Amino acid sequence: MEKLAAYKRKINEFLKLENFKRSPANLYNPIDYALNMGGKRLRPVLVLAGCDLFGGNIEDAMRPAIGLEIFHNFTLLHDDIMDDAQQRRGSETVYKKWDTNIAILSGDTMFALAYKYILSGNHKNLPAILNTFTQTAIEVCEGQQHDMDFENRNDVTIRDYLEMIRLKTAVLLGASLKIGALIANADAAHANLIYDFGVNTGLAFQLKDDWLDAFGSEEKFGKSIGGDIVANKKTYLLLKCLEKATPPDRKKLAGLYQDKTLGAAAKIGQVLDIFEKYEVKEESTLEMENFFNLALKAIKSSSAPQDKINGLIGFAEWLYKRDH
Amino acid sequence: MEKLAAYKRKINEFLKLENFKRSPANLYNPIDYALNMGGKRLRPVLVLAGCDLFGGNIEDAMRPAIGLEIFHNFTLLHDDIMDDAQQRRGSETVYKKWDTNIAILSGDTMFALAYKYILSGNHKNLPAILNTFTQTAIEVCEGQQHDMDFENRNDVTIRDYLEMIRLKTAVLLGASLKIGALIANADAAHANLIYDFGVNTGLAFQLKDDWLDAFGSEEKFGKSIGGDIVANKKTYLLLKCLEKATPPDRKKLAGLYQDKTLGAAAKIGQVLDIFEKYEVKEESTLEMENFFNLALKAIKSSSAPQDKINGLIGFAEWLYKRDH
Repeated sequence: MEKLAAYKRKINEFLKLENFKRSPANLYNPIDYALNMGGKRLRPVLVLAGCDLFGGNIEDAMRPAIGLEIFHNFTLLHDDIMDDAQQRRGSETVYKKWDTNIAILSGDTMFALAYKYILSGNHKNLPAILNTFTQTAIEVCEGQQHDMDFENRNDVTIRDYLEMIRLKTAVLLGASLKIGALIANADAAHANLIYDFGVNTGLAFQLKDDWLDAFGSEEKFGKSIGGDIVANKKTYLLLKCLEKATPPDRKKLAGLYQDKTLGAAAKIGQVLDIFEKYEVKEESTLEMENFFNLALKAIKSSSAPQDKINGLIGFAEWLYKRDH
Repeated sequence: MEKLAAYKRKINEFLKLENFKRSPANLYNPIDYALNMGGKRLRPVLVLAGCDLFGGNIEDAMRPAIGLEIFHNFTLLHDDIMDDAQQRRGSETVYKKWDTNIAILSGDTMFALAYKYILSGNHKNLPAILNTFTQTAIEVCEGQQHDMDFENRNDVTIRDYLEMIRLKTAVLLGASLKIGALIANADAAHANLIYDFGVNTGLAFQLKDDWLDAFGSEEKFGKSIGGDIVANKKTYLLLKCLEKATPPDRKKLAGLYQDKTLGAAAKIGQVLDIFEKYEVKEESTLEMENFFNLALKAIKSSSAPQDKINGLIGFAEWLYKRDH
């Protein structure tokens, strides 16, 4: 865990030193702004960790790691337009601070820059690295489309939901680790094991994100609780509750989500009461543990040194047990 | 020229057979729609021509060629949002037919698909091919930003304008040829000569596009004349006219562009009268010839067979002499 915290500092230092403010300013200033907004730096940290796990030199992985972080921030720029999001990490979103056109085009440029950083290492495994990255980028777009489609669907199942978060969030965590492993010249079989570890960790991570939105402490989480409920998001919690509830409670729950006259606090309170009745908090925790165990199984089959494996397991455990 | 027409048919057949309609439908149907809208297929044709020029097998270049066409159409999807364009090639734009969010996300997916097609050949020169493509993609975004910035600037020079169209349009034509050459294992020096040929041809091509918008025949051009004048676009024609005109005429011209009460036909007519007075039609033709000659100089320095060089020169000549 300390090693990963050091990686995060390293990434932040690199991004600060790397000057993204080039000409034309209306294109590059938003990029520099987005990349210095902070955040967990989860994806680049995982690239470095994946490289280290298989005995690689993390310096070789730095620029591809930055590429993954640029890609992630590109998706945020475009998602914020699509979701009409005003704030991110306590600051105005690019789309609000500038405008939609600039957020589209700066995002497009970041996608190209992501490739530039990944390419700049000229690694032996370049084709495999780029195939992994490209396939993942396509899947992330598919996940975002499913998420948008869910808004207008009333037949979303838990299985659909898990597939959506797998595509939208989890595969990129898996790909980050796998790309790190490929930079360290891990063979395909081991690179795929660490990918599976990352995807399952990512599923638990996203479930925890939804969990914190409903059950977290506002103080620790840093944002107000119940946002997903107010926004009528079809989360695991809601879908599990709909699955378990009696027909009258299911009707009541559906009614709460459709009621446009109800205030946010009242809506959140009443929905959480039904969530509690059907123990969806515990159900969600069980699901996270399930994915964590699948992650464990994958990483334990790899040939990496035990102490490094333990470090990553500790990180994965923290990701789904965290309270913020 | 016949060879290039055959390449175009080949590209259209490939795109028709390749089914882009996958799940989720809201993501992939717009992609399939955009890729089967027609168009000149200039970029993929140039990839195949660049490959053939240096003795490569054009079958090896087919998938990268498709990648370049997908990339070009991605930029059109996003440009149409930014320009609020309702129609393209006689059909509704993706952004109008679906919505902004879908046009953003389908575009993003096309950018990733472009890489997928370019990668799928697994060529010996893959790093050089991808570096060329990625750098070009960044430049195309920069060009689009300059173009948007021009709308709010009153100090745009002809030099600024030429740099904008170089980035927005010309480098992608150069890159298409260069990528084809690299697939045929041309060395860097020759790949760069054909790139220069493509960039200069691209500059002449874009100047002709602007020329046709002002002086073309509506019947042959397939769209109404004067669109750039109505939209207050800072084209070569306007900038050259402002440069040459006497202070009173310059003031008159500026007034016509600012007058919001003037009807489109009257505005176009009066602007064209001033264009005629200062012979900007002829000035623009001279500039095209200048770029065509630079293109000639570059391609004639290459070691490619004379008959193939002549074929490409004929094509470049057609591009800036065409009447539609």
